[in-house]
Amino acid sequence: MVVYNPMFLRVNLSAGEARREQVPWEIVKLYVGGRGFGIRYLYDELKAGVDPLGEENKLLLLTGPLAGTGALAFTRWVVVTKSPLTGAFIRSAVGGDFGAWMAFASLDFILVEGQSAKPVYLYIEGETSKVMDASSLWEKDTLATQEKLVKIHGEGIRTACIGPAGENLVRYAGIFTGRRSASRGGTGAVMGSKNLKAVVVKRIRAYKKPLAAAETFRKLVREQAGTFKASPMFAMFQQTGTGGGLATKLNSMGMFPVRNFRWGELPSYQNLSAQEFLRIVEKNVGCFTCPVNCGKVRRVADGPFKGAVSEGPEGETIAAFAGGIACPDVGFLVAADALCDDLGLDTLSTASAISLAYEMFEKGLLTTADTDGLQLKYGDPQPAMLLIKKIAQREGIGDLLAEGAARAATRLGRGAEDLAMHVKGLDMAAYDPRGAKGMGLNYATANIGAHAPYGYARQEIQGVPIPRAVDRLAEDGKGDIVKFNQDEEAALELGIGCNFCLQMNFTPLGHMAKLLQAATGVAEFGEVEYLLTAGERIYNLERLFNIREGFGRRDDTLPKRIQEPILKCSIEGEMVRNLGAMLDEYYQVRGWSREGVPTSEKLEQLGIAR
Amino acid sequence: MVVYNPMFLRVNLSAGEARREQVPWEIVKLYVGGRGFGIRYLYDELKAGVDPLGEENKLLLLTGPLAGTGALAFTRWVVVTKSPLTGAFIRSAVGGDFGAWMAFASLDFILVEGQSAKPVYLYIEGETSKVMDASSLWEKDTLATQEKLVKIHGEGIRTACIGPAGENLVRYAGIFTGRRSASRGGTGAVMGSKNLKAVVVKRIRAYKKPLAAAETFRKLVREQAGTFKASPMFAMFQQTGTGGGLATKLNSMGMFPVRNFRWGELPSYQNLSAQEFLRIVEKNVGCFTCPVNCGKVRRVADGPFKGAVSEGPEGETIAAFAGGIACPDVGFLVAADALCDDLGLDTLSTASAISLAYEMFEKGLLTTADTDGLQLKYGDPQPAMLLIKKIAQREGIGDLLAEGAARAATRLGRGAEDLAMHVKGLDMAAYDPRGAKGMGLNYATANIGAHAPYGYARQEIQGVPIPRAVDRLAEDGKGDIVKFNQDEEAALELGIGCNFCLQMNFTPLGHMAKLLQAATGVAEFGEVEYLLTAGERIYNLERLFNIREGFGRRDDTLPKRIQEPILKCSIEGEMVRNLGAMLDEYYQVRGWSREGVPTSEKLEQLGIAR
Repeated sequence: MVVYNPMFLRVNLSAGEARREQVPWEIVKLYVGGRGFGIRYLYDELKAGVDPLGEENKLLLLTGPLAGTGALAFTRWVVVTKSPLTGAFIRSAVGGDFGAWMAFASLDFILVEGQSAKPVYLYIEGETSKVMDASSLWEKDTLATQEKLVKIHGEGIRTACIGPAGENLVRYAGIFTGRRSASRGGTGAVMGSKNLKAVVVKRIRAYKKPLAAAETFRKLVREQAGTFKASPMFAMFQQTGTGGGLATKLNSMGMFPVRNFRWGELPSYQNLSAQEFLRIVEKNVGCFTCPVNCGKVRRVADGPFKGAVSEGPEGETIAAFAGGIACPDVGFLVAADALCDDLGLDTLSTASAISLAYEMFEKGLLTTADTDGLQLKYGDPQPAMLLIKKIAQREGIGDLLAEGAARAATRLGRGAEDLAMHVKGLDMAAYDPRGAKGMGLNYATANIGAHAPYGYARQEIQGVPIPRAVDRLAEDGKGDIVKFNQDEEAALELGIGCNFCLQMNFTPLGHMAKLLQAATGVAEFGEVEYLLTAGERIYNLERLFNIREGFGRRDDTLPKRIQEPILKCSIEGEMVRNLGAMLDEYYQVRGWSREGVPTSEKLEQLGIAR
Repeated sequence: MVVYNPMFLRVNLSAGEARREQVPWEIVKLYVGGRGFGIRYLYDELKAGVDPLGEENKLLLLTGPLAGTGALAFTRWVVVTKSPLTGAFIRSAVGGDFGAWMAFASLDFILVEGQSAKPVYLYIEGETSKVMDASSLWEKDTLATQEKLVKIHGEGIRTACIGPAGENLVRYAGIFTGRRSASRGGTGAVMGSKNLKAVVVKRIRAYKKPLAAAETFRKLVREQAGTFKASPMFAMFQQTGTGGGLATKLNSMGMFPVRNFRWGELPSYQNLSAQEFLRIVEKNVGCFTCPVNCGKVRRVADGPFKGAVSEGPEGETIAAFAGGIACPDVGFLVAADALCDDLGLDTLSTASAISLAYEMFEKGLLTTADTDGLQLKYGDPQPAMLLIKKIAQREGIGDLLAEGAARAATRLGRGAEDLAMHVKGLDMAAYDPRGAKGMGLNYATANIGAHAPYGYARQEIQGVPIPRAVDRLAEDGKGDIVKFNQDEEAALELGIGCNFCLQMNFTPLGHMAKLLQAATGVAEFGEVEYLLTAGERIYNLERLFNIREGFGRRDDTLPKRIQEPILKCSIEGEMVRNLGAMLDEYYQVRGWSREGVPTSEKLEQLGIAR
């Protein structure tokens, strides 16, 4: 029996109203949940060309059908909107408990539209919701905001909120829950533009999510636990978090993004070994029902950043900051991570903007006259810390950098365009794609811009031969691999599964399918092929959204630097040589035209109504 | 052009002579190298029923065709002989530099036969070799022996030697090189029975191994380096060694062998986390050309074992000792490991014999009258330390335990037979097979007795879906998986590849095949299928050796306890229910009769001449 009946809360901030709506079954069947609902509603409800920071943009906070059940690592949630950083579709994914708390309020997602005249927050408790005054929260950082809300509403709440960066419309401000964030693409700026400081959900203890086959479901969760524990990655994530050993690994692969992606190895990278990070771990924290607890609360023990505390940094943040300013210092990394989290910034785009500034300063393209007097010298972390604050407050040079590396470079001129490391405006972080060409093709084509987990090339980065083994340096024959990775990730975000599951469980969709069927009672959801097709459907609809916004083949590109030889590393001289041929192959595998537009045949095959 | 021309040194200790011989091409073609040559020569040259500790037994120290080249992690070597512990075929594998040093002396293996009247050691330098007086080395521990030999012959040597346990014919004494050992099955006792204290090889700097296609080979090694670095296991082995997190993992899987395999979880197992072991690492050490450096030199920082230093313990030793006497204490584990290494004992069989004694003491089947006054109380490590010394010296109860758990139990009677945890006399270590039934079937059928890496069930232990995913608790359908794992491992030991490669590289034989072809020039060696068939050939010939010694289906068994419910863990109640049916299935997949004898058809298919 089908017990799946997805509901969402439509919140109109212009009117100050909210109402519950049901997702029509024809959408449910084809788009399953989570990211699927996100793009379908965004595509259907947004006109082309709206201002991402204007009243017409909409913001969706979506969890999946497995949130709030006992399934492990399926409480992720995603934010979907039109990005103020890229002007394209954005989905930013995050963990914590908030997804489960939405589920406990019988909500699959929250759709925010309009704009409030003054600061407000949304409060949800069971079936009720109200828009409340947020003037006492405004200007507070993300931690203080959440603490204040706990004082007002008690411990039973979970909050998604913005910090000063979101209020100040920094184009890569994020939405934070606990110390985790959905921050790629400036979701927090969209929230800020709507004068929405926070969304608060209170858990109603009595609520229990209905399950179509409860006994089977419990058995599957036990199997899932076994699979996790058997995985070679489980212990690593559990012990060292996502950052454990990534610096060492990237370095040995020649893929550490050093000095704004000029070199592939970081001198003294040994200072960033898993052991160094382990040394200062105080506590492990994780998401609702997840046994991994990959979040590592670290406190800097000595040096200039002594006392700084962060639930991080995670792996890509380590690479982006340490490589970006050539500063392999754990203390700095923890302090920078904490500061970004407090102020409500995406660490990856923050690091990218700062990396651009450091390189331009080295080259004399920026001087102290531009930088409010700061000397941006490689290896010196203090100016970077000041830049983070300036960005969040849009103060001095921070106002320029708050626009993101791509826009800042265009405004500056001075040849800076070639130095901004982004695709479609979204900044690249770890994983220099010259050392993993399929990852590069993913960066070039991903609907949201350069983002590793949008189609994580585990074949190249980890050697997993699924669906087949590949040579990480080869350009030929990567089209089908990239499509597979992107569609598999999209399928996983129907659940919504944590993408570390992809790494911990070699065939994660198999498990998710069984769990989905047992939870919802929808037989089709139990088939991996059905989910992969749904993933492809979503991926194509996101592409159509971007095409409607004017994106095309010319935007499927990589920074000039990536198409030039990498320096100072074990793969010295490697580059992306023929991106055009890679795109041709990829488009063909995707069933798209030579210009990168899905053909009518492909859309018909996927059942996509425009 | 074929440049592969395997040579070995035949050393007759009765005559005090040694001469070089060439391996005939018909053997080379079918048996490739390493373990393949080992079983072929042992099968051909040993009569059935010889005393393993008598003059007629032979001892082979074999490395592979890739030893001494730049190939990564292919310098393993194996010892092959008839085991004094089991009476069956034994191969014990080990790393370090010794394999490369054999290759530098243009030797693929050393075959030792006969018996010396007085203590000697074998000294090899380039093409020359001599049998030398070892009276000044006798009674020295393994470290002192190696140090003394360096004083005599200089730093350019590598040594394989025995300690007091080997001299005293402890049936599970090992052969040691550095702090690594080939110790399963009592290879060191065979050496001791021949009065051979050590084999020493001096490296001749001028020697360079010929390669059929040097340029291709170098390119392949670079690819191999990339594959290693990409693997999710690489960083873990590099950081934490083989013991990193194994305790936590076994515990969560309910497979920690606690109190002689009674319980599946160890109370306070958290004391054995990777972090606890990392805390006291002083240095990382590894084998010739291997980038992993999985050897961790640890020094106990405080407590009763303060100051103890060991290059270990590795994962299975941790489980065997900590579980065996219920003592999750890092200091004890390091100290026990160091003591076993000094005295020249196999840690796994030592722990098993001691575990048997502790259990019998708890049950009143042994009293202080039997134990030389020792109180064998769970959790108390001091008596275990004393037992290790007594075993090596065959003193008091140590003389009984030096026979191995299986023989000791038989001699004691008192119901002890059901408490000795072994198959064919070889003791089980980590991985309670009730939590991984394919591992259990491997234990039951492996030619050397219960030994995990003889056919490591990575499908069950790590969830790797190669050749397919399996349910670790299921008994049905494991026959082909176990055959695959055993044959794949046998094929890898032609190379000889480190079996952590199996875990680091998802398809290791592919790489080995290409390396073998480039190194030797033999085209057939470049095909994975050819190597897998050679692995199966070797596996069957080992089986024929055992059958000739009187082994059969009745010996393919598991301890009674494994066929009863496991206690106190997450898989409480699990057991091996129908080993008979599992054997039927396995024999059928193997092409063996219902009694476990290879059929004529199978032997013909594999080209095995008896």
